[in-house]
Amino acid sequence: MTELKSQMRDSMKTNRLEALIDGTFAIAMTILVFDLKVPEIAETLVHEQIAQKLFNLWPSFVGYFISFILLGVYWVGQHNIFKYIKHTDRAHLWINVFFLAVVCLLPFTTSLLSKYGSEQIVEIIYGANLILIGLFSFLNWDYATIHHRLVDHAIDERLVALVKKRILVAPVVCLIAMVVSFFASGISFIIYILIPLYYIFPGKIDDYWKTPAVPHKH
Amino acid sequence: MTELKSQMRDSMKTNRLEALIDGTFAIAMTILVFDLKVPEIAETLVHEQIAQKLFNLWPSFVGYFISFILLGVYWVGQHNIFKYIKHTDRAHLWINVFFLAVVCLLPFTTSLLSKYGSEQIVEIIYGANLILIGLFSFLNWDYATIHHRLVDHAIDERLVALVKKRILVAPVVCLIAMVVSFFASGISFIIYILIPLYYIFPGKIDDYWKTPAVPHKH
Amino acid sequence: MTELKSQMRDSMKTNRLEALIDGTFAIAMTILVFDLKVPEIAETLVHEQIAQKLFNLWPSFVGYFISFILLGVYWVGQHNIFKYIKHTDRAHLWINVFFLAVVCLLPFTTSLLSKYGSEQIVEIIYGANLILIGLFSFLNWDYATIHHRLVDHAIDERLVALVKKRILVAPVVCLIAMVVSFFASGISFIIYILIPLYYIFPGKIDDYWKTPAVPHKH
Amino acid sequence: MTELKSQMRDSMKTNRLEALIDGTFAIAMTILVFDLKVPEIAETLVHEQIAQKLFNLWPSFVGYFISFILLGVYWVGQHNIFKYIKHTDRAHLWINVFFLAVVCLLPFTTSLLSKYGSEQIVEIIYGANLILIGLFSFLNWDYATIHHRLVDHAIDERLVALVKKRILVAPVVCLIAMVVSFFASGISFIIYILIPLYYIFPGKIDDYWKTPAVPHKH
Repeated sequence: MTELKSQMRDSMKTNRLEALIDGTFAIAMTILVFDLKVPEIAETLVHEQIAQKLFNLWPSFVGYFISFILLGVYWVGQHNIFKYIKHTDRAHLWINVFFLAVVCLLPFTTSLLSKYGSEQIVEIIYGANLILIGLFSFLNWDYATIHHRLVDHAIDERLVALVKKRILVAPVVCLIAMVVSFFASGISFIIYILIPLYYIFPGKIDDYWKTPAVPHKH
Repeated sequence: MTELKSQMRDSMKTNRLEALIDGTFAIAMTILVFDLKVPEIAETLVHEQIAQKLFNLWPSFVGYFISFILLGVYWVGQHNIFKYIKHTDRAHLWINVFFLAVVCLLPFTTSLLSKYGSEQIVEIIYGANLILIGLFSFLNWDYATIHHRLVDHAIDERLVALVKKRILVAPVVCLIAMVVSFFASGISFIIYILIPLYYIFPGKIDDYWKTPAVPHKH
Repeated sequence: MTELKSQMRDSMKTNRLEALIDGTFAIAMTILVFDLKVPEIAETLVHEQIAQKLFNLWPSFVGYFISFILLGVYWVGQHNIFKYIKHTDRAHLWINVFFLAVVCLLPFTTSLLSKYGSEQIVEIIYGANLILIGLFSFLNWDYATIHHRLVDHAIDERLVALVKKRILVAPVVCLIAMVVSFFASGISFIIYILIPLYYIFPGKIDDYWKTPAVPHKH
Repeated sequence: MTELKSQMRDSMKTNRLEALIDGTFAIAMTILVFDLKVPEIAETLVHEQIAQKLFNLWPSFVGYFISFILLGVYWVGQHNIFKYIKHTDRAHLWINVFFLAVVCLLPFTTSLLSKYGSEQIVEIIYGANLILIGLFSFLNWDYATIHHRLVDHAIDERLVALVKKRILVAPVVCLIAMVVSFFASGISFIIYILIPLYYIFPGKIDDYWKTPAVPHKH
């Protein structure tokens, strides 16, 4: 029976799911640039005004880079957890479709943040978007690892727990940023900028990638 | 002769077709977000109006999620039937190009639904789009399985029939929604929302994926 | 020396080039939908005007389907010739980049055709776009097959010649359409619609795909 | 220990990173076409004005082709260096995410160049964009090759140095173009057009690809 189940699982490879995820991230990252709009200037005023008008785009540039880097954080995260996820199934495919649905919202909430970033409601919406992305990431890993559903039986339980903690850092920080937004404007914006720093720099998790103790997908 | 034919078919792998389908779905899903437009508000009125203006976007949000999930339904469906389809040929490639042509219309019909969803003609157009997607999905499977044209000879005939039935549920439901739209406004909108529920939850078809009785593509 | 050259060629696989081509076609096909713009109607006039306004979009729908199908023709064409092309090199990569540069123009020329299709200059521009796509397709195949540069030595020379002829049909037909546009308006539009028919239906070329005489790439 | 490290590295394949890069380039190239806007002309004036209005788009066409070809240069460059890069790690993934972040800016800076190309500040911004792309390309190669971190130990050191030099040509030329822009307007525009010529035509580097001396990735 165990063998039968493993045969069934083998038939549901993750390669096309990974292709859909990679494609979606590539597009969501690229269309962030649409928020950088070439300023419209009357022909006679171009030389006089262009420097100022371009300088005024800085909130859009900041938004572009924050969201690009945050999408990078989640793409790198997906890239890493799919090293351990060896199969997929109907429920897992759907967790990932919902995950992508909230990922694809980010260009919209970024645009909102660039334009009305000083409004509390906008800070909350952006944070809520990040929380949803984080929660579906967590669900993805939790569903795959519980009872070794879609991962190898030999996986190190400490790694499973460590990845969970790592994924939850961003949603927790976003929750704090949301609470802060009730007391001071603009602070949560800065907190969102700081999130990628936690993920970009190597952490305890990297030790696991350096040892071959955990069997990897071929 | 049989061996010769199978050699010919081997030369027409499905991997690039699957790449085109995955890429197209990734893009069609992602560009749904373009329908969520950041509201334009005069600078002095931002704080006063932004909550209301964002709330007014709810039909676009509903449209975004319905269409994203429906595209998810069809992507998961494609993902599953291509487990059994082992080769492709000229006619099959073209069935898939036409399939993608109607899939890529969905961002337009969704936008129409979000903006003018209470108009009967719009409810009919959205349903017609879903019917076309469903029919080309059906054609894809029917063409591939008839006389085992592009699938393994050992495929379970009950599976072939079951997949056909499953694919036809959405078009039939859409037809009913269209008829309903002649008598009551807004009901068909709700029916379209309910369609994914049938496909997301596991059905009889999942039993087949749990047994290795049907040979899978490697 | 021959062995050395073949080793060199092995190191330049076509898989990433195929990925770039598939991705670019997927996007170029999908963004054709941006030309279908949801009509703007004053709130009180929606019910009265929507059917008419949607009907007025028909030239955009025609343009969408023609260009989608034509991109399908060229994608299927690429798909087929890359079965025989086993390696790539610097010049071949660049032929393909230029090919993609003219493929990506099609959403623009399609938009032009949908909006100002009765203008002769627009008919000529659309035809010129198709001719450029055709010529770079031809160059792709010609460069790859001359002296068996990027294909197997055992390739059937009649197949090489047949593919060349097939590729050149579209540019020649477009040239005729251009000449016709000087005498009668609207005819070239219809000729462009007819081009895909030649490519969709099976031809002499399909006989080659039915025999395993030509060695295929694994 | 060496074997242990090599096992660790094996687990971080480059295939998904390559997929993200290919997808992002495909999209960045394709959306350049959005800068070609179908001119709006009053119905009665179409026949009279269309030729002139289309002719007026020439700066956008020039911008489209320069940027498409430049993206082609960097894609071909990535394609070639990833032949030698056999693994990836956290820092390397992030170098590539930042690389893509500046690549995706190119459609914006191109649009700026097409519209306000005679302004010095725009010439500088476009050049700065190209310099950033070049520097992250350099960092990619430098990080991967130093102490053979992500490449094979048998790699020819002369090749490593040659690739570095080649990558730095574009940033250096852009720096010169920037300096020139302080003295004469429009010259830097022409210099940017000339950059691809250096990369399209074969150079010393191609000799390395013709010898199997350097072990390649399978």
